[in-house]
Amino acid sequence: MLHIPALEKLVHELSRLPGIGPKTAQRLAYFILKSNETYSVQLSESIRRVQSEVHTCPSCFNYTDRDICRYCTDPHRHNETICLVEEPSDITRIESSGAFRGRYHVLHGVISPLEGITAKNLKIKELIDKIDAGISGDAPAIKEVIFAFDADLEGDTTSLYLAKILQGKNVKISRIAHGIPMGSDIDFIDDRTMNRAMENRVEL
Amino acid sequence: MLHIPALEKLVHELSRLPGIGPKTAQRLAYFILKSNETYSVQLSESIRRVQSEVHTCPSCFNYTDRDICRYCTDPHRHNETICLVEEPSDITRIESSGAFRGRYHVLHGVISPLEGITAKNLKIKELIDKIDAGISGDAPAIKEVIFAFDADLEGDTTSLYLAKILQGKNVKISRIAHGIPMGSDIDFIDDRTMNRAMENRVEL
Repeated sequence: MLHIPALEKLVHELSRLPGIGPKTAQRLAYFILKSNETYSVQLSESIRRVQSEVHTCPSCFNYTDRDICRYCTDPHRHNETICLVEEPSDITRIESSGAFRGRYHVLHGVISPLEGITAKNLKIKELIDKIDAGISGDAPAIKEVIFAFDADLEGDTTSLYLAKILQGKNVKISRIAHGIPMGSDIDFIDDRTMNRAMENRVEL
Repeated sequence: MLHIPALEKLVHELSRLPGIGPKTAQRLAYFILKSNETYSVQLSESIRRVQSEVHTCPSCFNYTDRDICRYCTDPHRHNETICLVEEPSDITRIESSGAFRGRYHVLHGVISPLEGITAKNLKIKELIDKIDAGISGDAPAIKEVIFAFDADLEGDTTSLYLAKILQGKNVKISRIAHGIPMGSDIDFIDDRTMNRAMENRVEL
């Protein structure tokens, strides 16, 4: 439709990005075309660089450009608590709150039968190995695993599955609380959140 | 905040794109990182390719990868009508409607005192040269110039300015109609559109 192969190719590649439809991809492509050459070189190179420099940490599977990531090597963090997250980006979110000072473990997804993602596609075996190493004394003992998944069906399924798998490992298993977000108006809370908030009410 | 320079650099470059905030840029960066290497190579190369292969047509200033663009060289299009647009992307929109079969001329912007864009920054001189060449007989004569600008203050300002500039050139000057969009409900039309629609009512 644009009749310029190079431009159509760029629109096609950009529209493969999440949340970028064909119309937005076209706007971005025209912006790149209109921008100075420095910008397109920088953008293009930073895409290549991120793929060559960044890899997953062999211990927690967070993204890092070091041998082992900063959260795994930080001596000021507790070894006995592991926070389990879906994606590396979730770590950034949790870190910025300052609410957690233990170690992380990234599953790289959640169980989703609809998308064909099963337990085998996730870093679950590696988590169990880590807990087992703690039990056998080859690594620091793990006392608690906190599930910090999205509050959706897939997150709940994964929580239930893992809670079952981790039974008998002598670790405390918890899930971050679901409920009314801070600062929100009760009037605008949906039924499922209200149900969960009532169910998990906290004694004062 | 992400603590990985290569990733932070990519987020920074992506967030310079129009409509891409820091949060979206971060999501895109993580997607690129997670994607296979083929995709990042393709995306990165298509960004470079578009800058090296695509340039503006020396006649109408549309984007093209040829010496002269397809609209300027098409022998089946009328020479006597020029449709004046702000950006090359506007041509795609007009072409897909099939409503126009003449030539184009891209201004590469509109007059916007707030953004410091004056007539000198636009391809206005080149338009006048084209019309003058038609008058002197060095090029096909131009009988009508149609303004197809966005229906905003800058578009109106540019229309008024150009209408004045082109006075005495013996060319008909017109503007695409402003009014109620097809298929829309009168109830939901804003005041300015309704005013314009009344003002420019068409006798039946």
